This record gives sequence, structure tokens and C-alpha cells, in this order.
Amino acid sequence: MSDFDALMEFQRSTEALSSVAERLGWDQETVMPRGAVEQRAEEMAAMESVLHERRTDPRIGEWLDNAAGEAEDAEDARMLELIARDYDRQTRIPARLATELARTTSLAQGIWAEARAADDLAAFLPTLSEILMLKREEAAALADGGDAYDALLDDYEPGATAAGISRIFAELRPRLVQLRDDLLGADHPPPKLDGQFPAETQLRLARQCATAFGYDWTRGRLDLAVHPFSSGRWQDSRITTRVVTDDPFNCLYSTIHEVGHSNYELGIDSDYAFTPLGRGVSLGVHESQSRIAENQLGRSRAFTGWLFGRMSEAFDGLSITDTEAFYASVNRVTPGHIRTESDEVQYNLHIMLRFDLERDLIAGRLDVADLEEAWNARFLKDFGVAVDRPSNGVLQDVHWAVGLFGYFPTYALGNVYAGCLNRAMTEALPDLDASLAEGDATPAVEWLRENVHRHGSLIPPVELIERASGDAVTAAPLLDYLETKFSAIYGL
Amino acid sequence: MSDFDALMEFQRSTEALSSVAERLGWDQETVMPRGAVEQRAEEMAAMESVLHERRTDPRIGEWLDNAAGEAEDAEDARMLELIARDYDRQTRIPARLATELARTTSLAQGIWAEARAADDLAAFLPTLSEILMLKREEAAALADGGDAYDALLDDYEPGATAAGISRIFAELRPRLVQLRDDLLGADHPPPKLDGQFPAETQLRLARQCATAFGYDWTRGRLDLAVHPFSSGRWQDSRITTRVVTDDPFNCLYSTIHEVGHSNYELGIDSDYAFTPLGRGVSLGVHESQSRIAENQLGRSRAFTGWLFGRMSEAFDGLSITDTEAFYASVNRVTPGHIRTESDEVQYNLHIMLRFDLERDLIAGRLDVADLEEAWNARFLKDFGVAVDRPSNGVLQDVHWAVGLFGYFPTYALGNVYAGCLNRAMTEALPDLDASLAEGDATPAVEWLRENVHRHGSLIPPVELIERASGDAVTAAPLLDYLETKFSAIYGL
Repeated sequence: MSDFDALMEFQRSTEALSSVAERLGWDQETVMPRGAVEQRAEEMAAMESVLHERRTDPRIGEWLDNAAGEAEDAEDARMLELIARDYDRQTRIPARLATELARTTSLAQGIWAEARAADDLAAFLPTLSEILMLKREEAAALADGGDAYDALLDDYEPGATAAGISRIFAELRPRLVQLRDDLLGADHPPPKLDGQFPAETQLRLARQCATAFGYDWTRGRLDLAVHPFSSGRWQDSRITTRVVTDDPFNCLYSTIHEVGHSNYELGIDSDYAFTPLGRGVSLGVHESQSRIAENQLGRSRAFTGWLFGRMSEAFDGLSITDTEAFYASVNRVTPGHIRTESDEVQYNLHIMLRFDLERDLIAGRLDVADLEEAWNARFLKDFGVAVDRPSNGVLQDVHWAVGLFGYFPTYALGNVYAGCLNRAMTEALPDLDASLAEGDATPAVEWLRENVHRHGSLIPPVELIERASGDAVTAAPLLDYLETKFSAIYGL
Repeated sequence: MSDFDALMEFQRSTEALSSVAERLGWDQETVMPRGAVEQRAEEMAAMESVLHERRTDPRIGEWLDNAAGEAEDAEDARMLELIARDYDRQTRIPARLATELARTTSLAQGIWAEARAADDLAAFLPTLSEILMLKREEAAALADGGDAYDALLDDYEPGATAAGISRIFAELRPRLVQLRDDLLGADHPPPKLDGQFPAETQLRLARQCATAFGYDWTRGRLDLAVHPFSSGRWQDSRITTRVVTDDPFNCLYSTIHEVGHSNYELGIDSDYAFTPLGRGVSLGVHESQSRIAENQLGRSRAFTGWLFGRMSEAFDGLSITDTEAFYASVNRVTPGHIRTESDEVQYNLHIMLRFDLERDLIAGRLDVADLEEAWNARFLKDFGVAVDRPSNGVLQDVHWAVGLFGYFPTYALGNVYAGCLNRAMTEALPDLDASLAEGDATPAVEWLRENVHRHGSLIPPVELIERASGDAVTAAPLLDYLETKFSAIYGL
């Protein structure tokens, strides 16, 4: 067997094992008995240990050295590049640091949850300091003299830099702040959908929505979870949602969002399964797929027209009785502190705040002790609202507690990518609205599969979006879309 | 770290990984999307490969050599004994043979399923020959000059021998054949419960039955599966059942049977979790726990009295309207070809047939080409009925197709053990029937936990049953129980 083949066979088993670990995570969040927590922790630790050993196996280095000349085409070359990249990152982190990070972040999750519940920031800050110290050490090891924050970012969005993201955010911010002010100052804000909506009916509608977006039920399933997520790839990518009885949009749009993620994984060329090409290429591109499904398609005038009919029927009438008002209500912009409850307009402002603060933390320009003050001042400036308590401010997200620094900006990048893709897609599919109005988003899903999904990790993120959209990646398409859509809804 | 501790730490991770593989099997049979078959096969193969590598890791041999003097108590000594036993078995089988067996039996399952569906024995025989050849090779490697069949049996029922089982079966067979003849010749056989029983209601009752048997819902759950099974241990042992709309007993007694298995695993001393002591000690003892729950307890006059009330209520009346007739109907004995549909009286006769034939196959006294003739002749002799087609005869069970030779007798051993345990338990718990009549089997479950479950694999099977029952293991208690119970029901 050639070194190339030996390497690929080894990687294939590693991919299969990592898929098992992911499935275990799904099990834990959906169906696991609540008394199995310790057992599952031991099972996960055993899997992670096996995976870590494989990912740092010195044979990978030898195979890579010997296989360099054996790549026969662009796919082979890209696979070697991705394996080398991952091996390089894995082996740069000292074993001691990896263990310490795993232990600390695992404990920190519980400490953070308790601190948030008690609104007691002081209880969390020592842990955050410890994690930050470890992450800075990790970043230095990965950066090898380069920028520390970029080294962390690269794990989630390969090739992205803080400088590049800052340019995009600088383009986004003024127009978003302006739009936000205009909308919140509007005389006639959209109505809120009132009522109680039985869980069973919500879930039935959620299934209809998933089907409308072409979700392949033979390779997936829908379950309930506290925090909705999508999990798995190739032949088995499952989605989850949640039910809030007085807010059916939570269930339905969570479902559509997760279908966007799963459609990406399920749409990858099956020849790439369990190879380094067989996953979505970055978190930003992944988020673009969930966002375009949820927002540009799912919250469009056309699709909400169909949804209004389905919901009116399923719930035997609604508190909102005409299609235009329903469309506006789906797209309400309201003041609020919480990122995950935010609307299309304000969401990216939340991200920018976190991006700036976490860069300062990693660079050592901001001390953990000053974090709350910095957060609250910035929030007041961008959102015009004071933060009343830590759970509405710096304690609201789990990310930093589990060591995810450099992760937040991928959410906003996803929105920007979605804007670029949406402009090209709506040009390419003049009849898309007619389909959406009939509850059929599959022409869009097929366009995305052809232009994005099927490539898996073959093409780097920015190149992929630029090829698909036929233009450079900028914030302009997203901003144009938001201003046009929301001005019309709010009658500005 | 001492060699003993190093060995135990290594084993602990292996146990955790094997638990993951088992959970993956549960997933496949209950919730996995149907399109994920290939992916799951790769995932399972990767897990099996990791497990095989660990189970044959030469360090185990070294640790065992060095740790022999480090055992501090009987538990330590037993753990070393169990690890040595497993390591010895694993390393006796050449890697080539293990791979060949895995490949052949994996393919054979599909070939068997097709042959059974088409009632085409000839399509399966070449595969069976191949498997038999490999199993004989495996048996010879394991037996190391000893008896080949005993070597296979020992994997499922440590310490058992064909000679010992033959003695028990010789004791069982004449009285069972006689009882069977008497019952099938009775003038007034029990009525059959007629009707259609909605799936939702069956499952609700199944949950009530599981609760009646003390199933710990915080460490388990109930799902549907084609072939009911129990899966997992320690903090997470799940059960499955099936629904046949015109036969609610299928769903309910499958549930109780699987609860018996899960209660065993969940009842093991939690200090033994993920050690070599942390599982049921043998398949025979395991089956004794499912059978005593299903039959001696679940099909008792007392428990069926409670069940009659619950079912009459849940289904808004039944075709049988008095408790005695209901009890009799739960215990109907009818002619039939299929082992898995068999009643308490005839079940063990099915096992004896398979036991004798598979011993002859392994010993080379019976050729695969003559198997059907031998099966059908023996069936006619023991059951008084001719076999009309292979799917009602030699093709009915999957066991041989997946290489399980030496597995069948553990089912009958389980019944014999259940007989022994039941005699001691009913003596120890004079008020048990009063509890069962109120739908509460937990006094029995607690007795079993104290005398069987909590020990895990600490005490070898026969010694465990003898300690618990206070008497030598013989078939007499089971036979006495069956004759008394069925003579009364049938008015003989």
C-alpha cells in the first residue's frame, strides 16, 4: 500500500470514530436518561483519548512526508493539505496543555451555568481568568510568532484573520446601527403573534417546514433538545428543535435553521464521505447555510405566506389574520439583551461586541476584572440600552467558559456569506418566490447544493463563496437586503 | 502507578469504549435513520478495530504477570482472573481468523435473512458451511486440546460444559415432553384474547408494567425495536419492545422480559462500574433474570390479576371477562414451530433440539447437507408436528448465521436457574403474591438484587445461583413449578 493510501485509510477510521463521538453527543442531548451523566463523561473521555492519540500519531507525519509526491489531482492535494494542517495544529499543543484545557473547560461549564443562574459574575471570573491564561498559551503555541487571536480563529474559519473580519465589520456596523435606530423608532411596529400553541402541533408543523426545505428524512430525524443543534454527516445528519408554547416561531425557525446545517452536510459529494473533504469547510460557511434557510428564505414574504396558511389551519385560527401582518410579525425587531433571541438586524451587533472584547482579552489589553464594565459600556453605545444584570450581559453565552475564543465572528461571517449567496441565488432563480409561496424551498436548496454543499471542504471558505456568488465577499449584499426588507416592512 | 492500577485503568477505558459500541448498536436498532446503514457499518468496524487492538494489547499480558501478587482481596483476584481469561481467549484467535469470521458472519446475516424470506435453504447452506468451518477452527484454537464445543460454550457461560448441560437436559426432557402432551391433549384449552389493541395504549401499559417491576426510568428508557432487547449497564440500561396490534401480550411480556435483563445490570454494585466485575456474569444468569420476571412473576396468577384490571380499563373491556380465564389465556400452550413464539413448557424443548444438533455440527458428526433432515426428524419426535418449510425449521433463528454456536443452551440454563431462584425467593417472601396482586413486583426485584444482581461478575454462575437458592442447581424446581402451575390451569 502506498503511503498516501495508508494515510487515507488511517484517516478514514479516525473520521468514523469522530462521527461516533458526535453521535454520542447527540444521544446525550436528546435521548439519554438523566441519570447517566457520569457514565457518559467516562465514555466521552475514552473516545476523546482514542481520537487524540490518533490525531497526534507520529505515523501521520511520516506518511505526509512520503505521500507529498503521490497526490494525483486537486482533491488528493487538498486532502493532504487539510491533514497536514490539522496534524500541525494538534502536535503544536503540548499534551499537558491539552489535558489542562479539557479539564478546566469541562469544569468551567458547570461553574458558568451556576454563576449565570445566580447572576453572580464574581463566582465565574477566577475560572475565566484561568481559561484565558490557558487559551493565550494555546494561541501562542499555535501562532508560532504570528498573531495569537488569528491562530485561534483559524481553527473555526481557516484562512480568516482579525484584520479581514474587522474590515467587514467596519462596513457593517454604521448602517446596522442606523437601521436599528430607525426600526425601533418606527410609529407602527409589527404585531406580536399571541396565543398558546400545543407542542404536538408545533412539531407537526416543524416537520412540514423541514420537508419544505428538502430535508432528507431517510438520512435524518427531528428530536427535542434544550439548545437546538444539528449533528452528523454523510448518511446521518439529525436535527433538533425546542418548543415554547407561546412562541411557535422559536420551534419552526430553529428547525429551519438546523435543516440548513444538515442539508449542507447531507449535500456533500458522497465520494468524500469520511475523507478530509467530507465536512463543511468552516463554521462561517456552515452558518451561512443555516442563516440563508432561516432568514433570507424562511422569513421571506413568499414563504411566510405559505406558513401563515399552514399555521392558521393547524392552530384553528391565529391572533393575526392577514398575510402582510403575519410577515411583519415574523420579522419584528425589538430591544433586548440576549444574542440568541436577537433578530436579523441586531444580531451582528452582538457579535461585533464580543469580537472586539475577546480580541482585547487574548491580546492582554483588557483584564478580566474590567470585562463587565467594557461590555456594558459598549452595549449601551451600540444598543442604546443599559445592561441590568450579568446574565443579560457578559454571562449570557457559554462560549468563553468552554474555551471558544475566535468562534463568535463566524456567526456574523455566516450572515455576510448568506447575503452574498442570496443575491446570486435570487438572480439565478427568478421563480424562487413562486416556489416558496407554495412551501417549496427545494429549488434554493438545490442551487446551494450545486454551488456550495457538494464541494465539502475542497474549496477554502472565501474562494467557495466568491465562486458561488460570482463576486468578492463584502457586507454590501447583506446590508442592501436588510435595508430593503425592513424598510418595506416598517414602511420607512 | 502499580501494574495492577495501570491494568485496571486500561481496562476501564476499554469498558467505556465497549459501552459506546453497545450504545451505537442500540441507536441502530431504535432511532437511526434507515439510510445510514453503510455509515454505521464503518463506524462499528472502526470501534471494533480499536477494541480488538486494546483487548489483545501485549501490555495486558505484562501487567497480568506483574500484578499477580498485587491483589488485595477477593474482588481484586477475581478481576485479574476475568481479565486473564478474556486476554487468553482473545490472543488465542489468530488475527486472520478473527477478521475472516467478522467478514463472513456480517455478510451471512443478509444471506440468511433473504434465504429465510424466500424459504430457500439451499441459498444459505454454502454460507453456513463456511461459518461452521471457521467456528471449528476457532473452537480448536480456544480449546487447546480440550473439547471444541465446550470452548465455544465457555464464551457465553463460563465454566459450563456440554456434559453438564446434557445432564440437566436429560432431567428436563422426559417430564417436559409428557407435560406438553398432556396439555395439548386437554379437553378445555384456555381461551385466546381477541381484539385490536391500539399501539399507544399498549405502550402506556408497557410502561406501567416496567414500573411495576421497579425499572429505574432515570437510568433507562423504552423504545420500539423489531426484535426487543435490553442494552447497556451502570447508569444507562435501555429496553425495547414491539407492538403487535392483535396481541398485546407480545408487547407487555417483551417489556417485562427486557426489564429483567436491565434490572440485573442496573442492580450491580456501582463500585464495579466499568471494571471486569461490572456486568452480568453469564448469559444463563442474565436469562434467568429476564425469565423469572416474565414468567414466574409476570405470568403468575397474582400479577395477571392486576394486569387484567389494568388492561380491562385501558382497552375499555376485553373479550375475556374473568380473572381466572385471563390468567389461563396468558399461559396458553399451543402447537407451533417457532422458538421465539413458544410458551414456558415447550421453550426448552426447542433449545435441546438446537443444542444436540450444533454439538454434532461442531464435532463433525453431522454434515450441513444433512442438517434439515436431522432437524425435521427431531422436531417431529419432540413436538409431534412436521416441519412444513425451512423458515419454520432450520432457517428460523439467526444465531448460527452470525456464528453463535454454544449460545442456545444458555437460554434453557436461564430457565433452570430461574426455577432454582424462584423456589428460594417464594420461600423467603411469603407476602410476594399479595404485592404482585397490587402490581408491585419490587419485593422480588429487591430480593434478586440482594442475592444476584449486586454481585455483578464477582461470583461464577453456578456458585452464584447455588448461594442464592441455597441448593444445588438441578432442573427439579423448574419442572415442579411448571407441572404444578399448568396442571392447575388446565385442570389436569
